[in-house]
Amino acid sequence: MTFFIRKDDTMYRIGIVGYGNLAKGAECAIAKSPDMKLGAVFTRRDPSAVQIHSKDVPVLPLSKLPSMKGELDLLLLCAGSATDLPVMTPELAGDFSVIDSFDTHAGIPEHFARVDRSAKEGGNIALISGGWDPGLFSLNRLYAQAILPEGREYTFWGTGVSQGHSDAVRRIPGVLDCRQYTIPVPEAMDAVRRGEQPELEAAQKHRRHCYVVAKEGADRQAIVHSIVNMPNYFAPYETTVEFITQEELLREHKGLPHGGHVIRSGRTGWEGENKQSIEFSLDLDSNPEFTASVLVACARALLRMKERGQIGCYTMFDLTPADMSPLSREELLAHYL
Amino acid sequence: MTFFIRKDDTMYRIGIVGYGNLAKGAECAIAKSPDMKLGAVFTRRDPSAVQIHSKDVPVLPLSKLPSMKGELDLLLLCAGSATDLPVMTPELAGDFSVIDSFDTHAGIPEHFARVDRSAKEGGNIALISGGWDPGLFSLNRLYAQAILPEGREYTFWGTGVSQGHSDAVRRIPGVLDCRQYTIPVPEAMDAVRRGEQPELEAAQKHRRHCYVVAKEGADRQAIVHSIVNMPNYFAPYETTVEFITQEELLREHKGLPHGGHVIRSGRTGWEGENKQSIEFSLDLDSNPEFTASVLVACARALLRMKERGQIGCYTMFDLTPADMSPLSREELLAHYL
Repeated sequence: MTFFIRKDDTMYRIGIVGYGNLAKGAECAIAKSPDMKLGAVFTRRDPSAVQIHSKDVPVLPLSKLPSMKGELDLLLLCAGSATDLPVMTPELAGDFSVIDSFDTHAGIPEHFARVDRSAKEGGNIALISGGWDPGLFSLNRLYAQAILPEGREYTFWGTGVSQGHSDAVRRIPGVLDCRQYTIPVPEAMDAVRRGEQPELEAAQKHRRHCYVVAKEGADRQAIVHSIVNMPNYFAPYETTVEFITQEELLREHKGLPHGGHVIRSGRTGWEGENKQSIEFSLDLDSNPEFTASVLVACARALLRMKERGQIGCYTMFDLTPADMSPLSREELLAHYL
Repeated sequence: MTFFIRKDDTMYRIGIVGYGNLAKGAECAIAKSPDMKLGAVFTRRDPSAVQIHSKDVPVLPLSKLPSMKGELDLLLLCAGSATDLPVMTPELAGDFSVIDSFDTHAGIPEHFARVDRSAKEGGNIALISGGWDPGLFSLNRLYAQAILPEGREYTFWGTGVSQGHSDAVRRIPGVLDCRQYTIPVPEAMDAVRRGEQPELEAAQKHRRHCYVVAKEGADRQAIVHSIVNMPNYFAPYETTVEFITQEELLREHKGLPHGGHVIRSGRTGWEGENKQSIEFSLDLDSNPEFTASVLVACARALLRMKERGQIGCYTMFDLTPADMSPLSREELLAHYL
């Protein structure tokens, strides 16, 4: 395999902000990229209390970021969408090229506008909402719509752990811990794949399964009642509640698997006589490690665009596939087309 | 839905060269695109003998093409890869922006270089090898490799009609007609999906099924022997031969279905401890109509790139997803991410 080589033959220097699961995945993905190296990890915690995997890379307090301007080519912002990123991404885009995985769908246009303004003022490049949904799933929705305009698109998530639903169960009195799995309904997927273009309510597409650790002496019937009747989260769905011990939960459900399917069922021909189906699927043992791997490929594309003079905010819709690949143009033409 | 609007509010004028199955699919896909219209169809046959679906569009002899320079924004070249496109695409790229679906994988680098030179000399833009394989399957191989560099990729084709294999059987003495289906082996796909990264010979990935119409009195045993022992085409594979009547073949096997799966099975984590799988699948009633639909989306992207001043040869690796979509940027940001 031949790799794309930068003109000055150097590696891109990446900084990571935060050190949760996503950041840990990014650290690993950067280490496995032929064209990047990790420059520093920034944390809001006491840096001496944060042990990172890469022993030769400094862990710095977030307050040190401004002094690193010019030392890093791009920052991966591994922070929360709810409260951190809406502030952090526009703020940092003034001084650094940045990538985030902002995933509050309804807030994307506003977030985009703010990051775009800030990045342009600073002469930087930025990408928001990288990952797989938003991200690769969005790409596939777009490609499929462009190719099959007469059609209908379905997204199924899972089987995978939903943090939001797990947290909601943990807040119920008597619950010590919970892991909630979102499970796509196979019959619904099959109907979509057969091209039937069914009308499907949310509850017809997914089931929910909760593994719950109850406190000693807790009223299990009351817990079940609270879960299955919780509006929006569980009430509309077929939900199964299974009580297990904390040990079982830690042993059997310690991972963060996820995945899903984007299916577009369309028709071509003058009378719509031919069914055509496009499906994109992910089956992930580790959601954060995979998301981080996507962000690192986006970073590569973004840095190449910056070298060609592009600034401002982008999404994965604006990246060419070639720019995301570490391989040389010759390699891609000869072996990937 | 809001659509992308060109500055001068006009539609792209597309020409189609050839009028076989692919061209017919393109005619239909253009008619369903909000931003394009068909300007003319060019044929090597006697134009008066070619009935196209769009009654108001002229059918012209290929020799009239030079006189249409400036009247058409782009030509879709719907001709054969084996002998037509290697000559036609570089030749026409001097006077027109062009797209082809050149699919001789080994010849791509040379074809690209020749088309690139010609397009640049003429100030035009060109795309080669559009479609689904090469095309969408290539894109997915590239994306998946960029995201999961530690992994292995598998392509399964089918269930679908292979023209090449059908033709090979038709050349056997005693055979009137044949339809050959390529069928992926489910056990092999399952092993790949489980992340086992198996070593698979071609014959372990696909089976072949031939529906054969024999001439009256032909030696059927000899036909079967010729098929299953045909080097490369059938000898390495598990092949089933089924004799049917011409009527059955025309009734049950008149379509050109195809499809397939690109699966990358990778690993992330410092010890490669997490399996991650990316799969892209197509299930197509009509291979040529689907391929044409992809080419039309490529045409849109290419014409936008041309408007921004880009010339020369490109592949689907060089198109941003946003450029392929007929939807406005605002629509994409608000509803597709």
